[in-house]
Amino acid sequence: MMETPILDTIHGPGDLKQLPLESLDALVAELRRRILYTVNQNGGHLASPLGVVELTVALHYCFDAPEDKIIWDVGHQCYAHKLLTGRADEFESLRKKGGISGYPKMCESVYDAFGTGHSSTSISAGLGMAMARDQLGLDHHVVSVIGDGAMTGGMAFEALNHVGHLAPKMLVILNDNEMSISRNVGALAHYFNRMITNRPYKRAKQDVGSFVKSLISERMVRTIQELEKSVKGFITKGGLFQELGLNYIGPVDGHDLPLLIELLNRIKDMEGPVFLHCTTEKGKGLKAAEENPQEYHGVKPLILGADTGEGDALPAQKEAHVQASEPAVSFTDAFAERLVKMGGDDTRIVAITAAMPTGTGLSKFEEAYPERFYDVGICEQHAVTFAAGLAVEGLRPVVAIYSTFLQRGYDQLIHDVCLQKLPVVFAVDRAGLVGEDSPTQNGVFDLSFLRAVPGLRVVAPRDALDTELMLQWALTQEMPVAMRYARSDAPLIGCVEGRSVDRSEKLREGEDLVFLTVGPCAAQALEAAEMLAKEGIEGAVIDARHVKPLDEAMLDSIAHQPIVTVEENTLPGGFGSAVLEYFEGRKRGQAPTLLRIGIQDLFGEQATRSEQLHMYGLDAASLADQARLLLGQHKGVLQG
Amino acid sequence: MMETPILDTIHGPGDLKQLPLESLDALVAELRRRILYTVNQNGGHLASPLGVVELTVALHYCFDAPEDKIIWDVGHQCYAHKLLTGRADEFESLRKKGGISGYPKMCESVYDAFGTGHSSTSISAGLGMAMARDQLGLDHHVVSVIGDGAMTGGMAFEALNHVGHLAPKMLVILNDNEMSISRNVGALAHYFNRMITNRPYKRAKQDVGSFVKSLISERMVRTIQELEKSVKGFITKGGLFQELGLNYIGPVDGHDLPLLIELLNRIKDMEGPVFLHCTTEKGKGLKAAEENPQEYHGVKPLILGADTGEGDALPAQKEAHVQASEPAVSFTDAFAERLVKMGGDDTRIVAITAAMPTGTGLSKFEEAYPERFYDVGICEQHAVTFAAGLAVEGLRPVVAIYSTFLQRGYDQLIHDVCLQKLPVVFAVDRAGLVGEDSPTQNGVFDLSFLRAVPGLRVVAPRDALDTELMLQWALTQEMPVAMRYARSDAPLIGCVEGRSVDRSEKLREGEDLVFLTVGPCAAQALEAAEMLAKEGIEGAVIDARHVKPLDEAMLDSIAHQPIVTVEENTLPGGFGSAVLEYFEGRKRGQAPTLLRIGIQDLFGEQATRSEQLHMYGLDAASLADQARLLLGQHKGVLQG
Repeated sequence: MMETPILDTIHGPGDLKQLPLESLDALVAELRRRILYTVNQNGGHLASPLGVVELTVALHYCFDAPEDKIIWDVGHQCYAHKLLTGRADEFESLRKKGGISGYPKMCESVYDAFGTGHSSTSISAGLGMAMARDQLGLDHHVVSVIGDGAMTGGMAFEALNHVGHLAPKMLVILNDNEMSISRNVGALAHYFNRMITNRPYKRAKQDVGSFVKSLISERMVRTIQELEKSVKGFITKGGLFQELGLNYIGPVDGHDLPLLIELLNRIKDMEGPVFLHCTTEKGKGLKAAEENPQEYHGVKPLILGADTGEGDALPAQKEAHVQASEPAVSFTDAFAERLVKMGGDDTRIVAITAAMPTGTGLSKFEEAYPERFYDVGICEQHAVTFAAGLAVEGLRPVVAIYSTFLQRGYDQLIHDVCLQKLPVVFAVDRAGLVGEDSPTQNGVFDLSFLRAVPGLRVVAPRDALDTELMLQWALTQEMPVAMRYARSDAPLIGCVEGRSVDRSEKLREGEDLVFLTVGPCAAQALEAAEMLAKEGIEGAVIDARHVKPLDEAMLDSIAHQPIVTVEENTLPGGFGSAVLEYFEGRKRGQAPTLLRIGIQDLFGEQATRSEQLHMYGLDAASLADQARLLLGQHKGVLQG
Repeated sequence: MMETPILDTIHGPGDLKQLPLESLDALVAELRRRILYTVNQNGGHLASPLGVVELTVALHYCFDAPEDKIIWDVGHQCYAHKLLTGRADEFESLRKKGGISGYPKMCESVYDAFGTGHSSTSISAGLGMAMARDQLGLDHHVVSVIGDGAMTGGMAFEALNHVGHLAPKMLVILNDNEMSISRNVGALAHYFNRMITNRPYKRAKQDVGSFVKSLISERMVRTIQELEKSVKGFITKGGLFQELGLNYIGPVDGHDLPLLIELLNRIKDMEGPVFLHCTTEKGKGLKAAEENPQEYHGVKPLILGADTGEGDALPAQKEAHVQASEPAVSFTDAFAERLVKMGGDDTRIVAITAAMPTGTGLSKFEEAYPERFYDVGICEQHAVTFAAGLAVEGLRPVVAIYSTFLQRGYDQLIHDVCLQKLPVVFAVDRAGLVGEDSPTQNGVFDLSFLRAVPGLRVVAPRDALDTELMLQWALTQEMPVAMRYARSDAPLIGCVEGRSVDRSEKLREGEDLVFLTVGPCAAQALEAAEMLAKEGIEGAVIDARHVKPLDEAMLDSIAHQPIVTVEENTLPGGFGSAVLEYFEGRKRGQAPTLLRIGIQDLFGEQATRSEQLHMYGLDAASLADQARLLLGQHKGVLQG
């Protein structure tokens, strides 16, 4: 049944262009199989890459990358693009250490015109390239492909507004799959829906054949203006984009490959900015795979149909199985469950997510209290200030945002929440290393950038129980609190009884040195202390819990001991620096011997979380090694 | 000619409501005079506050603040609001230390429903208040007043999209004065223009009387739906906002007080979100003042007509005079002039501003090379990623953004520039203390949040010459560079010959201690060293110049001396912490005695820059005091 794969003959877009139109359907099917197979093995995104397979083939068939620049917004839909641009052979290494990234990456391939990972950047980057091209007298094409979810991000609007103003030749393709966020959020989504469901579009869809025919009519090919008019005739209701000065075309069926190819070839000749609205189907091809799994190289039902549709990648099969056999509560679960419990007692509690209801666990809150739950779309800026507004009226908003995306709401956190002293709780999920999901998703800067903000409390739970207690504590504070926690399980560390999350906690006694840890790093520190104990070195382990303000009484009590700070955050300005600062202020000239362990000042590389912990010297063995070294230096200082 | 001021009788909106409609024109004139007079004395914004006087009177006449929430976007247009809400007596203290803020401030008055200072936040905050109101079963009104410039900010779009989705009862007023940015930037501005210039609006304007009459017709007052229909009949072309689900009304003349009052009273009864488009005149009333200065209590021509229309406040008369008699080059000037020079030699250089062409000095670059200059509107996120796109194609973009506004582009700086290793130069203006212009405008976090970003060079010039040389140097780097400088004059510090800005520079020798400074703080440190020298204490002064990476050779050479770091940045995670971190890594257990001087971990208060420097212990006398203290501690440690 299986023929020789066409994909084996494609080492770049040039090979693709040699294929006759008739072969493309088979190629599309192959691409889908490869994506399904690889995601099943390695984990990754599924629905997004499956939805844009035809579009990707059409783009590389019509445009000449890498001269022409194709920019994939967010980027996790780029798998077919990677398969078609010389990376099919290495595709099995997707998301693995040293392997192919799950996102476009400029240093990986010249075909990746811009590195992405966060939403809504493609139009800005594309506009920059288009304006530079014109200034440099070049004439290549620039294409930005953006999803409907990413279009809700204000940055995309800022860019569209500027595109309309400068009006360079460029193509913005809206991949409208109605799935980038759990449901359609925002008026824009309704707007897209109205555009799709209104009559002219339906008629046009039935009449695609004659439309395409009209496009290729020889008579008008020479007259760009007339061509534009004819294309504009296909416009049903692009008012919003038309008003912003873009030539709106659509909506068109994003799975109709001949139509896409015809349209793209025509659009190439149009002047000025063009906005092409494609509609695509959620996880296109997934159903076929479900019905014929054997054809898809053993794609297992566990994965099929399991894509969240959000920014979260699926775990690889193996990891999923491990999780299945050892059910553990994650930080996210602990947070979400406690929030639901508290929401029952305190109706002032409201929950806000920026398009990550499942990832942040807030979908549970939504189920319980739909009227107190807000999904604002991919709009971190608005999410934070919206929460500030809710807090002004006396509510207790909890904003759950991934650490890496909170960078988008930094100014709002500073001015609209902290300067106003409003009691907003930030649940900073995915803080620390996130594993295979690209360095763009690591949450390793938050302790540094949050610590700089006056009036903000910054705390980190070490396990599920801490998470619950700390959330409870945070919601009693009359000031803003940021609680940061990892993308990982949150097994119990230390005892259950008598916890007071308003201060640090000593988890292990020891007089030779102190591991002073933030969050789940306590686990590795305890393990490291056990290793050292076998050599007669007694290391204490203290969970700091509070990064800002620090537990000063605790710090004073350990000032005589060598201290090793351990955090999943970049070293510049992180928790370790906070400890240094404290001793600079209090014990000038008598600072304790101190070693800071954290993320080195580099953008990381993809790998599993445990590989990453080892790479950064944050696993138990590395901690023990570094502690030994510090003790040696300490003795040297005392002797010297 | 002058009668008893009406304003003296108004101690709150309640008093305003007692006034007959006929008195309001006189009140409007009084408000304008008071604003002109006070800004002339104290400095501040002029055109924005003058433009919204009628609107402010109408809002407080129709709505019941503080129960009803009125949120002023950006906030610098709030002077009339302050005058009408019990602060007329204190208005003379505007922008002075301990006085009335130039922006809404929740802790200053219950009438300031939300603190603002940065653009485009009012709709998000207003939506939060509206949703909280509905949840709490309250029924007050929420009004967000936003300018056309602020509307270009993506955050405003995110919020509008969410407003359309949730559709609560709230009013968004667009104050369209076509002046918030130097020229109309962006397609949205053109869109507004088209709305204003098209025929139905012109006709409607001539026909205002009959329109208002139709509104107040008794017959339809009871039928909200019919009322809405009639109001909608006034809609000319609100497509964009209508598409987003808001009831668009306008454009209406924002200086027609009777019309505004009538409209606002009617809108109060409408359900769902309403978008009211008002057009106002740039600096309304300024011309009258120019023609009759004596009537305006000595408003001087220097101020009249001098408003930049940007976020920048005017200086007070006195300061302006000082500047006039001692012309000095500012950091901004030095930057802008060198950029213009370099732009002539290197056509790859492009300049980008987010709606601050005058404030950043880039208007000079625009004059010289209009085709290589971009004003993107109030869109910091887009500005940064747009620059990244330009850099991808080989251009050398220079993005000039105020430190406080760069917080809006933080995520883009991290991911779109630094992770991609793109050579974008960030000219971070207004870094440090900015004086009277509200704590929201201070740029005191940038060293902390920029230092956390891998691959970014962070530098600070101490004077005009350094600024020029450093810009030159930055444009030769094949990596991103952030150059931060103050809102101040940049007089020469140290000698001119033989400067190498790629490393630190010793400005004064001394063996007893070292002042290690960032930027213009070197001046105060030199002065402090002179003071100490009179007591026989010899302090060296070293301008660090490089905050990231540090000049390590220099640090090694001073490790044996007590060190005082001096920076205009918050202490957590700032330059001083970088030095602490360096010695922790290199000289473990042998860290030098070190004192960090910078901005304490608090949001500041308005005051002049020199008052602020003193408040934060950054003036010469304070530096000397703290150095003495450090030396005492140091000796104590050595002896103990």
